[in-house]
Amino acid sequence: MTSTGASTARSTITSTTLTRMRECAVTDRAELDRLLDDNFLAHVGMADDQGGVVVIPTAVVLHGSTGSGWMRRAAAGPPVCLTVTDLSGIIVARAAFENSLRYRSAVLFGSFTRLAEPDVPGALDLFTEHLMPGRTSEVRPKNRRELAATMVLSMPIGSWSMKTSTDWPTDAPDDVAGHAWAGVIPFDTRRLGDPLPAPDLRPGIPVPNSVHAMTARHDRPDR
Amino acid sequence: MTSTGASTARSTITSTTLTRMRECAVTDRAELDRLLDDNFLAHVGMADDQGGVVVIPTAVVLHGSTGSGWMRRAAAGPPVCLTVTDLSGIIVARAAFENSLRYRSAVLFGSFTRLAEPDVPGALDLFTEHLMPGRTSEVRPKNRRELAATMVLSMPIGSWSMKTSTDWPTDAPDDVAGHAWAGVIPFDTRRLGDPLPAPDLRPGIPVPNSVHAMTARHDRPDR
Repeated sequence: MTSTGASTARSTITSTTLTRMRECAVTDRAELDRLLDDNFLAHVGMADDQGGVVVIPTAVVLHGSTGSGWMRRAAAGPPVCLTVTDLSGIIVARAAFENSLRYRSAVLFGSFTRLAEPDVPGALDLFTEHLMPGRTSEVRPKNRRELAATMVLSMPIGSWSMKTSTDWPTDAPDDVAGHAWAGVIPFDTRRLGDPLPAPDLRPGIPVPNSVHAMTARHDRPDR
Repeated sequence: MTSTGASTARSTITSTTLTRMRECAVTDRAELDRLLDDNFLAHVGMADDQGGVVVIPTAVVLHGSTGSGWMRRAAAGPPVCLTVTDLSGIIVARAAFENSLRYRSAVLFGSFTRLAEPDVPGALDLFTEHLMPGRTSEVRPKNRRELAATMVLSMPIGSWSMKTSTDWPTDAPDDVAGHAWAGVIPFDTRRLGDPLPAPDLRPGIPVPNSVHAMTARHDRPDR
């Protein structure tokens, strides 16, 4: 799953080519796509108007209100950085110094452009279907008011780097010979709880297939 | 838990005062502290040297190698933005437009300073104890080489804003009267799996109290 080469995707910018922990670098684009498919939370950074930066949590498919100042700022196309992080466990070493994490993370650089109006319904449906397969056919289509209030931004993936670690503790021989425990505490971040019906749900409406499809996918033991 | 007023902590900077979804704004500093205590993953944004920005996933107590370029850049004290996001569920509405998330998130602005050498061991121990109560007494102290290789940055919390949503779907009456299901799919993000012993763990070393303490805390059903 990992490669020993550093990503060269942003090789013109020295500071973002992986210089440390190269054994964690991933250069396979399919791995990046998988990480993005598996996560819908991203953190987007961009410059603010005070010489600083701001980092906003958002869905990987960036969509939001046309009334949002940050959405409008992002739509203007400044350089942005979109980061996705998937923690899967804590690596507990015998020496505290060697404690670490199991993770996949990717840092993507680019800029956003606003989707043209005719493309918005399809993009939002794609997002819903990605999260909850079959949901779009269970609900009414979006109406004109809803579409007018929604802005969808797309960011072509240009330069990126990705790191992953599925390690075990790497203690020195002296520590391995000692008395301290070492191992990994896995996160069950993919586990979703039982669906809770809304307080105003009409009686007799069962949990739909899309919700079952979603929870089943996220319960996969290989994640 | 939520307040109807927007945070005024950064009121001098219009764009980061909450202008939308003010009902989600949190102004209670204790709530912010709780969010930071409960999460150890943060995303830090800062300017890069190309006129853009970069967003790096990191621990809330920012520590890393003295050889890390981004750590050195952060230590120089540029304006940074540290964002912590805790998703707790997906709000599934009858109308796709009303789909939303249950979350707590905070955006903190400030800058880092590097901890003086004598303060480093205590800070790292605090971090370990926060994550795994009792762990520091189960392992050997950090040695001089390990401490020399570690940089710890602190960021005094100056201006910040926080949002939280523990909502249910808010569909229009026409949609509530329809046939679509609505509710919340909770994330069990706090659930930790059973500890996995390291492949090179010597026989007869049981899972220690610190690991039990950690998994017990994160299994709390109120999260």
